[in-house]
Amino acid sequence: MMEKHERLQQQIAFLMEIDKVKNIFRQTYLADGERKENDAEHSWHIALMAVLLQEHAEEEVDLLKVMTMVLIHDLVEIDAGDTYAYDSAGAATKRAREEKAADRIFGILPADQGAYFRELWEEFEAYETGDAKYAHLLDNFQPLLLNHVSGGKSWAEHGVKRSQIYKRNKKMEETSKTVWECVKAIVEENIEKGNVKAE
Amino acid sequence: MMEKHERLQQQIAFLMEIDKVKNIFRQTYLADGERKENDAEHSWHIALMAVLLQEHAEEEVDLLKVMTMVLIHDLVEIDAGDTYAYDSAGAATKRAREEKAADRIFGILPADQGAYFRELWEEFEAYETGDAKYAHLLDNFQPLLLNHVSGGKSWAEHGVKRSQIYKRNKKMEETSKTVWECVKAIVEENIEKGNVKAE
Repeated sequence: MMEKHERLQQQIAFLMEIDKVKNIFRQTYLADGERKENDAEHSWHIALMAVLLQEHAEEEVDLLKVMTMVLIHDLVEIDAGDTYAYDSAGAATKRAREEKAADRIFGILPADQGAYFRELWEEFEAYETGDAKYAHLLDNFQPLLLNHVSGGKSWAEHGVKRSQIYKRNKKMEETSKTVWECVKAIVEENIEKGNVKAE
Repeated sequence: MMEKHERLQQQIAFLMEIDKVKNIFRQTYLADGERKENDAEHSWHIALMAVLLQEHAEEEVDLLKVMTMVLIHDLVEIDAGDTYAYDSAGAATKRAREEKAADRIFGILPADQGAYFRELWEEFEAYETGDAKYAHLLDNFQPLLLNHVSGGKSWAEHGVKRSQIYKRNKKMEETSKTVWECVKAIVEENIEKGNVKAE
């Protein structure tokens, strides 16, 4: 019984620490275009998206695992900050900053749960398993949809090129042909509208 | 293939519609006390909490189901608005407003997925199954933790009494003795601090 209460206290400490992601803002605007979204909102959105779009994955996925993975995938940003998808200078130091953050943040939990979350985060980062590829598809598709419905201004603000989007999503076609077709159509529409640069 | 694309378009329409919960604000302050949290942030938090606190549930729970349930449990507020936990006037009309909202919002999805989400929401609202009780425990425990760490000002602002909190959480002890012990300790501490009224 004592151990249960101690574990609960560690879990609570972790849960209150990660409240900070509600103040980590991304480059994506909400659908209404009024303000940018934060990591907690983004993670809620893609966890629910994981349930709905599962049928479009080419490989079978472990839904419970993917949902947990996407709910925690951005926690390292509490210490490491958000690195914008097309920021190549930030990308160079990203891994080292995020590893240190993972040590500290997952270290707040009871050891078994901290180790499990660390594994999930490493699997996500490695981007190799079917589950990680599906998680990345969600992580990339959601801001693309929001950018599209909010009038493409996030792309325009950052001068994003077609080749950058296609490079970032190069594993998407093998993960889901249906989603990939949709992504291509959205990108091409936003090139016509002048929101994404053709080159 | 055609059907897949049609389903994806319905799923996207739903996903963009529910983006609105990011602008539905609750009465709970974030841990840092700086601003109130919104439904998307709250739902993200309790879905992750579902994973971590599962071990404290007296009955076995279907974690995947509970996570999905909590991710969607507040979507009806897009049309019906947030009814504060201790607002009895609002509570009287809540059910009718929320049913109409559920019809419209879940109706955007492909019929099978809309029916599944509707069932999950009804199960949550009925508050009878082990899964629904665990989901409610999370839904109630998370704001209590945030109110506590943010200095109790949300309780103080609304003049909340001990008896109101205990009435709202009357099924918690049967759901998790460990969490219930923790809740009682937090409430009593906040009575001593003058944030919650003894009567």
